[in-house]
Amino acid sequence: MEDWKSTYRLLTHCKHFFHRRLSPNFHNSKPFCTSGSRYHCSQPSELVKPYIGNYQQEFQTFKHLQVSLGTNPWNRCRNQYRCFASQATIIQRRPDFSTISSEDLSYFKNILGERGVVQDEETLDAVNTDWMRKYKGTSKLMLQPRTAEEVSQILKYCNSRCLAVVPQGGNTGLVGGSVPAFDEVIVSTSHMNKIISFDKVSGILVCEAGCILENLIAFLDNQGFVMPLDLGAKGSCQIGGNVSTNAGGLRLLRYGSLHGSVLGLEVVLANGTVLDMLGTLRKDNTGYDLKHLFIGSEGSLGIVTKVSIFTPPKLSSVNVCFLACKDYASCLKLLLEAKRKLGEILSAFEFLDHGAMDLVLKHLEGVRNPFPSSMHNFYVLIETTGSSESYDREKLDAFLLHSMENDLISDGVVAQDITQASSCWHIREGIPEALMKAGGVYKYDLSIPVEKMYDLVEEMGVRLGASAKVVAYGHLGDGNLHLNISTPQYDDKILSQIEPFVYEWTSKHKGSISAEHGLGLMKANKIHYTKSPETVQLMANIKKLLDPNGILNPYKVLPPSLFTKN
Amino acid sequence: MEDWKSTYRLLTHCKHFFHRRLSPNFHNSKPFCTSGSRYHCSQPSELVKPYIGNYQQEFQTFKHLQVSLGTNPWNRCRNQYRCFASQATIIQRRPDFSTISSEDLSYFKNILGERGVVQDEETLDAVNTDWMRKYKGTSKLMLQPRTAEEVSQILKYCNSRCLAVVPQGGNTGLVGGSVPAFDEVIVSTSHMNKIISFDKVSGILVCEAGCILENLIAFLDNQGFVMPLDLGAKGSCQIGGNVSTNAGGLRLLRYGSLHGSVLGLEVVLANGTVLDMLGTLRKDNTGYDLKHLFIGSEGSLGIVTKVSIFTPPKLSSVNVCFLACKDYASCLKLLLEAKRKLGEILSAFEFLDHGAMDLVLKHLEGVRNPFPSSMHNFYVLIETTGSSESYDREKLDAFLLHSMENDLISDGVVAQDITQASSCWHIREGIPEALMKAGGVYKYDLSIPVEKMYDLVEEMGVRLGASAKVVAYGHLGDGNLHLNISTPQYDDKILSQIEPFVYEWTSKHKGSISAEHGLGLMKANKIHYTKSPETVQLMANIKKLLDPNGILNPYKVLPPSLFTKN
Repeated sequence: MEDWKSTYRLLTHCKHFFHRRLSPNFHNSKPFCTSGSRYHCSQPSELVKPYIGNYQQEFQTFKHLQVSLGTNPWNRCRNQYRCFASQATIIQRRPDFSTISSEDLSYFKNILGERGVVQDEETLDAVNTDWMRKYKGTSKLMLQPRTAEEVSQILKYCNSRCLAVVPQGGNTGLVGGSVPAFDEVIVSTSHMNKIISFDKVSGILVCEAGCILENLIAFLDNQGFVMPLDLGAKGSCQIGGNVSTNAGGLRLLRYGSLHGSVLGLEVVLANGTVLDMLGTLRKDNTGYDLKHLFIGSEGSLGIVTKVSIFTPPKLSSVNVCFLACKDYASCLKLLLEAKRKLGEILSAFEFLDHGAMDLVLKHLEGVRNPFPSSMHNFYVLIETTGSSESYDREKLDAFLLHSMENDLISDGVVAQDITQASSCWHIREGIPEALMKAGGVYKYDLSIPVEKMYDLVEEMGVRLGASAKVVAYGHLGDGNLHLNISTPQYDDKILSQIEPFVYEWTSKHKGSISAEHGLGLMKANKIHYTKSPETVQLMANIKKLLDPNGILNPYKVLPPSLFTKN
Repeated sequence: MEDWKSTYRLLTHCKHFFHRRLSPNFHNSKPFCTSGSRYHCSQPSELVKPYIGNYQQEFQTFKHLQVSLGTNPWNRCRNQYRCFASQATIIQRRPDFSTISSEDLSYFKNILGERGVVQDEETLDAVNTDWMRKYKGTSKLMLQPRTAEEVSQILKYCNSRCLAVVPQGGNTGLVGGSVPAFDEVIVSTSHMNKIISFDKVSGILVCEAGCILENLIAFLDNQGFVMPLDLGAKGSCQIGGNVSTNAGGLRLLRYGSLHGSVLGLEVVLANGTVLDMLGTLRKDNTGYDLKHLFIGSEGSLGIVTKVSIFTPPKLSSVNVCFLACKDYASCLKLLLEAKRKLGEILSAFEFLDHGAMDLVLKHLEGVRNPFPSSMHNFYVLIETTGSSESYDREKLDAFLLHSMENDLISDGVVAQDITQASSCWHIREGIPEALMKAGGVYKYDLSIPVEKMYDLVEEMGVRLGASAKVVAYGHLGDGNLHLNISTPQYDDKILSQIEPFVYEWTSKHKGSISAEHGLGLMKANKIHYTKSPETVQLMANIKKLLDPNGILNPYKVLPPSLFTKN
């Protein structure tokens, strides 16, 4: 063991990016990189523009496409399951939705007061625009209820008036799910932000939907507990939005998905019914467990107003190591070994390839290569979290020794303190920013069985040749690949070589075209790549049952064509 | 630490109950105790009789009650949410259901062959009768499909003929959910028992619904993995039934519920539609996660035919200790400490009270009191499971030392080998058998916030006085109380003192009247004690959407009155 330990090298202190909590008016400042990052890093907005430009172009050609494809373009593809051509998000404002009248405003002011009815342009501009400045709605009204009862009154009224609604939490989503597509009324959960109760014996937290994740993390930290969820956007995102999008993040490998952690919800349905499912029990087998319908349905079935969640105790010992592997097969063997040898203390298993490391070293300031003498094909970041400093470290050492003896790792460093641990994480989490600095980037968030995951990256490399750099990183422990294609600038020809190939490949290998980001507006029409037609049809039937007028977050999640009235 | 270690006492080897796998014809042999036991222990059938007798009596008085309560007795209670009187399960065969004709038999023989259509009396007697011999149907037909396609053909036909169906796995349920209420066609999943795939990197197992849990556990053990689920009935229960009832069991504290572990399902709906939701991905955020509708809906929304489940790696180090506490408050503090100090290696935290220990010592052979010199008020069994023998044991030792220094435990033993560990578990798991030997027993499976849990036991004790012994044990780590009232013999007067008090108390304290057993036939009419009227109504609407003719497991889970056609 000593031999191995002698090969460890201490990481030098790296300059960190400024970590700050986003203000409610963050849209007025520069946009932030968000994809999986636990740091909020500023990024040059000009680099985003080409992609925004293309999106606008898609919208401008909308009428032309409508004509050429017929009024219901999706119907052409209904029998071509898992074999569609890529298509732009083609939607039309539903003509049966009402527009806001002065009577509507009076009604809302009557139940919410003047302060709960927001019409000023600057604020509306911010809440109409998504985090990446990729999607922008034209809503003239944001409502800020303070209780579930107020949400109920709002929805009951909107339903009766056929006014479309978009629920909005921290507005940190990446698929256009949290901003209006047109002029939907924005119902913000931000003013419902109280912690209701915390049980220190059971670790069960009950809070309102508008609580900011970082505030909950801080609250629990004081109590000696942790949220089973951690995200790069934690400074702005709200627990109601996290639940509604089934947010994944950095702790999924250890604590599982929100379907396991969330114990209860209070949800307001489209007709104003308040569903009290706010159980605080780990076990309850009385009837259908309906809360799961609202976890990950992106606000299209109801607005989450309260959350009950199981939180694990905080553990004191955290170890981080950064390793080099000669090939992808070694990464997979290492994952298997880590699961077995580190077992109960393994809390992260992230990977990046040579191209990703190369970009980080080139474009991010303050990053030092932990292995400066040579580049490796793959890098793995492993984190352990446990209750005993010495025992956990010894477990990690034994695992590393065994892995090195079995030629699974070519080199490695173990962080000696929190600063070095942060430096390791910074390499992994700096990739999105490095990509943005490198030029145009085409981003895909995929779940693929780990054995096949890197085949896609290699095939994409062959497909694109010298025209683009294919870069891969992600949560290997969860089978979640962030596939990025980096080019000097945005180019339609490149896009047509990537799509629909990337979706078809993912579908063919039983993957998911959205591992953790959801479908939102961006991929509502692409759900068939991952879900069977019968399953999608049942989703649509459930949507119609819960929201017959379709007022809740319209055009999102499911193909809008499923709801056209013929 | 040495001082504390010197107080450990080695448990002497106890005589174990015979552990055997139940044969498919187990109903022809004596019944077994099942409630939470990991051992299949024989129990004297005559002790069950009084309760069976009472159940039969309830059915005999059925017509009389119907008259006195009107045709829809539930309606009387609709406005009395959480404040009902206890009532027997009063149901009437739905007159719109067809009865089996010779043409039906020909159709089924045509698709399944002669061997798949079971009509012999002996077998039908067994599959009409539930595990506890408490419920008995009168079905004249059991079908044994071998594929989802055959299940689809069966259900499509039954739906068109309005033939009611009860899906049956291992028939080990405790609430009458897996046997016919009347003459429903039994659709057995037993012949769909193949393991389809296992991925050793991701730990994801895909198998057919009829796989017996114990076989899956053995298969995974060979692969170096464990099922995230373990039950006393594992020798007979099937994974499809486990999923359909959201079985809890002994590993929930460590691995969470099946809503977290199950990654995908194949389900056949009432109209024969095969829903392919058999994902093998840990992360997939594409649309509504519909599989959760079928986890715990007790076969009333569809028949599960295939399961994809995430299995954790097997860990080599298991420690068990048996501790004594002076009061319930100490048990709670100990639970909090165990979560914090043992953290990631804690795998069970069970408790029993003085009365339970007393019964076990009196009525079970081969059990020795680990603390013979004095009786204690409470006992706690703690199990740890980890990847390192020495480190885990040292962690446990440090926790025990700290707990003793802080006066949380009065005495304790740590098992030195697997035999002693089994002996500790045997005390906890022998309680159901001891209760049955002691006389009549009224059993309740409740979830209650742990702080209040024991208040119910004490209040029940005061309420019943000397007429009965109130005995408590259960999965304290999960907030699951098994409340048992032991009497020399069954007595209606005692029952009327217990019910509806026990349900009302549980409801008042936001508990669940069924922690892990489900509702089935036994508690379908009691769902309102735990779930809000709006939630129950939405469940009924979803049932109507998925099964408009109500052919799937009728009379179960939800109050039948919600489906009467007026």
